[in-house]
Amino acid sequence: METAELVSTGNELLSGRTVNRHARLLGSRLGDLGIRLVRDTTVGDDLSSIVEAVRSALDRSGMVFVSGGLGPTPDDLTRDALAALLGRRLVTDPVSLQRIRERYEAFNRRLTSSAERQACIIQGAAVLQNPVGVAPGQRIEVDRGVIFVLPGPPAEFESMLDEHILPWLSARSGAEAARTPPGIFMVCGVGESDIVARLEPRGFPPEGIDVAFCAAPGRVEIRLSGSGGTASLQAAAQVIREELGEAIFAEERISMEACLAGLLSDPPATVATAESCTGGLIGHRITSVAGSSRYYVGGIVAYANEAKIKLLGVRAEDLNRYGAVSEPVARQMAEGVRSRFDAEFGLSTTGIAGPDGGTVEKPVGTVFIGLADREHAWVRSFRFPGSRPNVKEWTCQMSLDLLRRRLLGLLAEDPSADRGGAER
Amino acid sequence: METAELVSTGNELLSGRTVNRHARLLGSRLGDLGIRLVRDTTVGDDLSSIVEAVRSALDRSGMVFVSGGLGPTPDDLTRDALAALLGRRLVTDPVSLQRIRERYEAFNRRLTSSAERQACIIQGAAVLQNPVGVAPGQRIEVDRGVIFVLPGPPAEFESMLDEHILPWLSARSGAEAARTPPGIFMVCGVGESDIVARLEPRGFPPEGIDVAFCAAPGRVEIRLSGSGGTASLQAAAQVIREELGEAIFAEERISMEACLAGLLSDPPATVATAESCTGGLIGHRITSVAGSSRYYVGGIVAYANEAKIKLLGVRAEDLNRYGAVSEPVARQMAEGVRSRFDAEFGLSTTGIAGPDGGTVEKPVGTVFIGLADREHAWVRSFRFPGSRPNVKEWTCQMSLDLLRRRLLGLLAEDPSADRGGAER
Repeated sequence: METAELVSTGNELLSGRTVNRHARLLGSRLGDLGIRLVRDTTVGDDLSSIVEAVRSALDRSGMVFVSGGLGPTPDDLTRDALAALLGRRLVTDPVSLQRIRERYEAFNRRLTSSAERQACIIQGAAVLQNPVGVAPGQRIEVDRGVIFVLPGPPAEFESMLDEHILPWLSARSGAEAARTPPGIFMVCGVGESDIVARLEPRGFPPEGIDVAFCAAPGRVEIRLSGSGGTASLQAAAQVIREELGEAIFAEERISMEACLAGLLSDPPATVATAESCTGGLIGHRITSVAGSSRYYVGGIVAYANEAKIKLLGVRAEDLNRYGAVSEPVARQMAEGVRSRFDAEFGLSTTGIAGPDGGTVEKPVGTVFIGLADREHAWVRSFRFPGSRPNVKEWTCQMSLDLLRRRLLGLLAEDPSADRGGAER
Repeated sequence: METAELVSTGNELLSGRTVNRHARLLGSRLGDLGIRLVRDTTVGDDLSSIVEAVRSALDRSGMVFVSGGLGPTPDDLTRDALAALLGRRLVTDPVSLQRIRERYEAFNRRLTSSAERQACIIQGAAVLQNPVGVAPGQRIEVDRGVIFVLPGPPAEFESMLDEHILPWLSARSGAEAARTPPGIFMVCGVGESDIVARLEPRGFPPEGIDVAFCAAPGRVEIRLSGSGGTASLQAAAQVIREELGEAIFAEERISMEACLAGLLSDPPATVATAESCTGGLIGHRITSVAGSSRYYVGGIVAYANEAKIKLLGVRAEDLNRYGAVSEPVARQMAEGVRSRFDAEFGLSTTGIAGPDGGTVEKPVGTVFIGLADREHAWVRSFRFPGSRPNVKEWTCQMSLDLLRRRLLGLLAEDPSADRGGAER
């Protein structure tokens, strides 16, 4: 697989001011073309660091992207660094200079000599006009490969990549474009080490297949790639499907709430939420999907016990007898919110997010999740690990997963036969 | 100035899956201690790349942070890479192993040998217990300096940095710790370029003072540091206070919801939320603060219009006449939720988060925010920029800020005299 490297320049990327988003964008776009981004080296606005970083990158990869340091101020040093490294002169590109002049005039800004520096390019470079900003990019072909120079501002970086560089790379690779797409599996409710323990006895990963895991609370993404060819990839994918089955909620990189958006639209169904320990997170995540108003009618955040009684119809005697974090309360919350909003489904959470409030019997992380439809209600209990935000994220993810399983017909129709959630 | 480097490991950082946020966080925190982060090298899960990247970093800087690759799966290679680089053995840390065992038992998960690998550390390393997750971190002192090894998940990286590494670095620097603490200003409701435009005429930043900005929806963090001495820093801080005044919600790095936690406890007051376009985000953010059950009683996510009428008492005729995204509806939502929860304050949001639903009169980003106390109600209108998540974040932040201003007595008592939010 062809490899590429990125050298990101800019003090702001290292001082705590800005997150460097270039590597993610570039890695994703290059991956689509079958090119693998293998390194991002972020350095400050320092001439010798830039020279050294680009030189090392060229030693390792035949394709190097350099971002930032093309502006008009004295700390914009990428042009000088590349001229020094390659032993080439800087020349003024007349088309870029004209564009800079016109642009400054249009905004009534004074054209200074430092602004004109932005029209300087490495001798022999192909100029990549900037669709968004002022400074042009460059494509420099060198003995060992090619260097692409792009501006640092994300909008300029992205549009130059999309409009100039990716089309050039696609045209160059020609027939190669018909590569195997990688396999993605989004898994809920099985931990990373459990997944490995299930797959390893099946001789996983097979020869020539790379597997990568990326875990977040209640979710593991498995990504297959490699040079083993379509047949190996499909065989590996089949092992994952057999071992993880219904724990796989998607075979593309989407969130659980995006997965639910599809399930809730065919046949159309509505859902309402009754949140205690998640405090509104479930509603927030459901409504992060555009168009969610078609199936999400709303919810009640019943943080105080009085709200559970008054707004959801939870029985006060059950609250007293079993406590707010209990199976009967989770059930009544789900049933109550479903009927109050007249929705097909009611989803509820009640638990101890911590760091305080835990007891010996119900330690921090104890959570009950309820789901009601028009006829039945299911409740699962969990003990989630980690800090307060972690418990909230886990609870949210597993409650959405409970709804997913119901929509797919994976729950026992008789809830008393449901095996519950304690298997976690 | 002492320098440090970061080596971030993980295929997910280069494949387009994840943005690497470690460099920003680390650069910011180290900057507070007078240490400059000069390079971040991001490499994939590849043994020889990790070895080479850490070796080069050690050649240049006496302090190297390595993140990621400490989990249980076969692509977690950081331990092996460091053992190879340093020529030291991997040994099992009994305390970490015990913690891993207990954790797996508590959650009824099977302890596999791959899970146990997480207890392996470099011989001679100091173990840094993980406050959030499983894998411990390490501090490894070597001839040329010190290597810190941290887990990749951002919450684990951050808490290990804050709880173990920064205190150690502070203690080590000893007398140096008596350096001037940097000035932090958290600002809400004024944009980055407006802040610059207000400060520049005051000769800002003064000689010897560095200023860094970090912007998020509805929030700008300003950070002062530098070698100019206490007097210069205080003078610079004074300029910021004079120019930004009540837009400063904290002079330490805390969130708006943490700021509200303090204001709502003295004198004690309760708040309830009625969310439409934010979908539960406000409740989620308020309840992300431990102990928020003392002042947050709950809320209603009234996504559908029927919910606004039935659960919040919004008048149907006003919904028809003015639309759901309107001043009267925001006001009635705030009043309705306050009275239904019998809280001191009711906070409401209604708006068009996009990407669909905008009109010429009310384009995407149009939002009304309402606040009711027992006597008055205030409504502010905004037009927020950006995508759906951005509009939700802006709305949430500005609604919490409206409550902050009320709690500080900054709102006109007669709401009709309030200048509203249209100045944005």
